[in-house]
Amino acid sequence: MKKFLNKAEDFVDEMLDGIYAAHPDKLRFVADDRRCLVTARPVSGKVGLVTGGGSGHLPLFLGYVGTGLLDGAAVGGVFQSPSADQAFEVTRAADQGAGVLYIYGNYTGDILTFDMAAEMADAEGIRVLSLVGNDDVASSPAGEEHKRRGVAGILFIYKAAGAAAAEGMNLDEVLRVAEKARANTRTMGVALSSCIVPEVGRATFSIGESDMEIGMGIHGEPGIRRGPLRPADEVVDEMLGPILGELSLAKGDSVAVLMNGLGGTPQEELYILYRRVAGVLAERGVSVRKTYVGEFATSMEMAGFSISIMRLDDELARLVAAQADSPFFAQHQG
Amino acid sequence: MKKFLNKAEDFVDEMLDGIYAAHPDKLRFVADDRRCLVTARPVSGKVGLVTGGGSGHLPLFLGYVGTGLLDGAAVGGVFQSPSADQAFEVTRAADQGAGVLYIYGNYTGDILTFDMAAEMADAEGIRVLSLVGNDDVASSPAGEEHKRRGVAGILFIYKAAGAAAAEGMNLDEVLRVAEKARANTRTMGVALSSCIVPEVGRATFSIGESDMEIGMGIHGEPGIRRGPLRPADEVVDEMLGPILGELSLAKGDSVAVLMNGLGGTPQEELYILYRRVAGVLAERGVSVRKTYVGEFATSMEMAGFSISIMRLDDELARLVAAQADSPFFAQHQG
Repeated sequence: MKKFLNKAEDFVDEMLDGIYAAHPDKLRFVADDRRCLVTARPVSGKVGLVTGGGSGHLPLFLGYVGTGLLDGAAVGGVFQSPSADQAFEVTRAADQGAGVLYIYGNYTGDILTFDMAAEMADAEGIRVLSLVGNDDVASSPAGEEHKRRGVAGILFIYKAAGAAAAEGMNLDEVLRVAEKARANTRTMGVALSSCIVPEVGRATFSIGESDMEIGMGIHGEPGIRRGPLRPADEVVDEMLGPILGELSLAKGDSVAVLMNGLGGTPQEELYILYRRVAGVLAERGVSVRKTYVGEFATSMEMAGFSISIMRLDDELARLVAAQADSPFFAQHQG
Repeated sequence: MKKFLNKAEDFVDEMLDGIYAAHPDKLRFVADDRRCLVTARPVSGKVGLVTGGGSGHLPLFLGYVGTGLLDGAAVGGVFQSPSADQAFEVTRAADQGAGVLYIYGNYTGDILTFDMAAEMADAEGIRVLSLVGNDDVASSPAGEEHKRRGVAGILFIYKAAGAAAAEGMNLDEVLRVAEKARANTRTMGVALSSCIVPEVGRATFSIGESDMEIGMGIHGEPGIRRGPLRPADEVVDEMLGPILGELSLAKGDSVAVLMNGLGGTPQEELYILYRRVAGVLAERGVSVRKTYVGEFATSMEMAGFSISIMRLDDELARLVAAQADSPFFAQHQG
């Protein structure tokens, strides 16, 4: 294991110390627990948005706490769920009198955590609704969306719901927007190499020197096909098939696209891959109104990438384009 | 070689096609040559800022073309200089009547390119000044700064000069600011693994399974010491020594810090490393007014990082804090 760290067991807490040291004007923690991360710039009367999940995916999850985005994140160990107590403490801080929406990925531990936190919040009179991200088309067939993993496409839900809450929508309206973003978003990933969990100290899985695994999850969950790495354009075509099929995109439709590096893949390659995505969408007459290329949901040093596409209506297009500001994700209006 | 690409010889041009496809409202090219990249939002009457250099370092160099930043970049092959003709065409487009400042790294090929381009511009009546970045303290001893390589710290020069030009300073003033930023910036890097140049197809250098190389350049130029990887805090301490020594930072001083990942190092580790940087600076009574943590100057998939520190006066602090907007680097005021 070749990582910059001190002790493996301090990996997450020292990372968090670094984050608070770097961004004291934007992020802070509550309940005397650095894993209860909240915005340092709460907005009174706004619907609170809370997420959480395991560490090892920066900027996911905590990186989307910021203006026009989320209000808090409960931070777990590497690939581990945070506790219900932590999620509850974040909820209390995020509640600004208008209730709280949970948006998190479809993993058993996280569901348990947030369901219990919601009960604790209810007992305190805080209204909480929940939405579980499940954008990974490779993780279960169509028709079984409730079994699918949540991966990078959750960014689109954060962005749309975050902008909706910033506009002053109420809790039910923000949930409606989040559900619409989810219903219109699909993701597929591919991995070339494994990550290493610091406390484990060796690769989570092995993969042949010239192989790729299509459909792999961001913790190394098995994909749908392993085989020799193909030219970039062919890899993109194989991944776009199910995404475009499920979204039934047709001429005149508008989309936002997220080309997400999993950690070890250089940005140069992401742009080579995006070139093909743009070409295929242009051929179909689909208009790309917003493009993100970079690292948005990683698996530490894993090489690979994912493509997420969200079909836009006018409302989603407006919300995606809205200004946002976190230390990990800043955009100007437009 | 395990990379997402089509043909190795198309690596740079397909990357550029992807970049133009992704950001058509912000970037375009001139002279019918996609390697002559300029902003799509030129500002009439503003001093033009131009950079350039080899590909393989995204977001460097072209990623800093944007509002409040640079106006154009001449793009070379992977680790190769662009041509003088390309730099000249970018210069013509960047000139908005107030002259052009070149800011680029201290590499022989780039110096030849930009010196020749400056002559061509002069022949057309465009006033051009030049500043060569040389922030890498590991590449030559103090007193021989003119022999040092330019690495990640050039971001601070771009940011300060870009904001100065956006404020309306004239060419001589922008050069003064850029010189001040350079004089107050130092960088040191460390590598854990090599990158692979696509057309070469194998690692540029090899390094032991548990070794690091302190002071290595972003093309794999030899560093100053190779040895076993040490705990993160010790690595930071070794790197901060020369940086803090040369900047003679004392109690009450203010700085900006750039923790730059070289490509293969996860953001989690950068924050663990930053934790120590912040601790050492706090101990010395040095105040950090701006912190950047992420990938700003890479070497494709190379694992490693660099620390850059710029000592701030009030003017540099104001310029660093100014709004900026490129597809690769966006920040709100503050």
